[in-house]
Amino acid sequence: MSIYEFAMSIARLAGEKIREQLSHELVIETKSNPNDLVTNMDKATEAFLVAEITKHYPDHQIIGEEGHGKTITSTDGYLWVIDPIDGTLNFVHQQQNFAISIGIFHNGEKYAGIVYDVIDDKMYHAQAGQGAYLNDRPLPMLKETQLATSIISMNPNWLTKDYTYEMYAPIIRTARSARSYGSAALDFAYVALGIIDSYITLRLHPWDFSGGMIIAEEVGAVVTNQLGDKLDPLHSNSILVANSSLHKEILEQYLEPHHTALESIHKGTFSNR
Amino acid sequence: MSIYEFAMSIARLAGEKIREQLSHELVIETKSNPNDLVTNMDKATEAFLVAEITKHYPDHQIIGEEGHGKTITSTDGYLWVIDPIDGTLNFVHQQQNFAISIGIFHNGEKYAGIVYDVIDDKMYHAQAGQGAYLNDRPLPMLKETQLATSIISMNPNWLTKDYTYEMYAPIIRTARSARSYGSAALDFAYVALGIIDSYITLRLHPWDFSGGMIIAEEVGAVVTNQLGDKLDPLHSNSILVANSSLHKEILEQYLEPHHTALESIHKGTFSNR
Repeated sequence: MSIYEFAMSIARLAGEKIREQLSHELVIETKSNPNDLVTNMDKATEAFLVAEITKHYPDHQIIGEEGHGKTITSTDGYLWVIDPIDGTLNFVHQQQNFAISIGIFHNGEKYAGIVYDVIDDKMYHAQAGQGAYLNDRPLPMLKETQLATSIISMNPNWLTKDYTYEMYAPIIRTARSARSYGSAALDFAYVALGIIDSYITLRLHPWDFSGGMIIAEEVGAVVTNQLGDKLDPLHSNSILVANSSLHKEILEQYLEPHHTALESIHKGTFSNR
Repeated sequence: MSIYEFAMSIARLAGEKIREQLSHELVIETKSNPNDLVTNMDKATEAFLVAEITKHYPDHQIIGEEGHGKTITSTDGYLWVIDPIDGTLNFVHQQQNFAISIGIFHNGEKYAGIVYDVIDDKMYHAQAGQGAYLNDRPLPMLKETQLATSIISMNPNWLTKDYTYEMYAPIIRTARSARSYGSAALDFAYVALGIIDSYITLRLHPWDFSGGMIIAEEVGAVVTNQLGDKLDPLHSNSILVANSSLHKEILEQYLEPHHTALESIHKGTFSNR
């Protein structure tokens, strides 16, 4: 079994455990604020994934949303970046629309990405250079779109803040329509699937975007931060993912005029992981 | 077979036809603007539903999104209010996340509501006074929530317009989070299911809200326009649907301060169907 196939197999196993346990009572803790809920299942899932990876590949490095590998600073060898439950708020409020996200890098280069929609049992996956899939179905390359005929995924929250309203409201006004689904990993998968044309957000951590980024890039999506810079698996960042023509249109016409403000946001918010 | 069971049976039949035809090419027309797409399948589905209803119940009145019954002004007898494909833009862009919506009234009183998520084969349904269901599963009564711990469904578009930003931005800022799914009928169903706590929008037509309203009210949701007035199946309106405590909080603390502006919006926008 390749590392890629192994990654899918442990994501499926973890998903089965989550589905089994969802009928039992959730024990929910709050982190720093009510928007930052985390559940025992989140921690148990990360522990399971880390244990499985370590058992099979003891020399691989692992960064996890729940705290594993916070001190990792090198991308040498294999690096796993995992979010045991991406879309925690959906998990808590909806018991659906959340995903297990896994990005795997080798010597800093992308190797494979997995986003597993646990409740719908939909496995989005890609090995770098080999194309992306939803379960066994190969996903076609993205079509180019223009903003006026595109559907953009953006959380309405970003339009209620002064420092992002000025940048983002014109994008949403021009777009055909907007959606918000509440899981970054699934938003990347939905861009790869072509059901949304772009996903725009600030402040994602590596475990939120690494798996989805690798999948989306396999079907031709362009993934950068909102300054147009490449993402890396060791640093949090802002996100602009879209098909190539739409990425160019949004970046050049809507974000570059706010370049100075955006640089300042990035310095303030993303100085460390 | 009761009228209620008959309504579910024709929704299922229509859904089967849509699923069969979705593998074939869509022929899309544009109405007045690119946001108002309508497909041949939309028209064919309405024609099928109207023909079935008329065959079995020749004396029933029918209002449809695609044009049937535009001149109806009386709610005497049985009145069907149908949207063959609610979430047309999802239908066109995603080929999922759309629904067949049917609301049935008898002498102006609600009789039954149906929202059928065609691709996920999920039938949300309720007969007035008999409780609401997802497929065969009875839906529990809604829990009361407060805005700070609630998830609100609102299209980000409403936050880019001056006349709605002032009213809506404080709601989204205070809420735990926001979502946007792109089908009004499904948004009502999601409130009934408890996966979102409120759905807020302007400008819905009777066929957008009639089916979902009847379902949501069966589990204790309060459904009014944004002035706090009851909806009726002959007139377009704004929408505030939520569990009772949340409905009260949003209406009294966030919308009533804008009562005059809202009255003006309603007079301008909803003077006719």
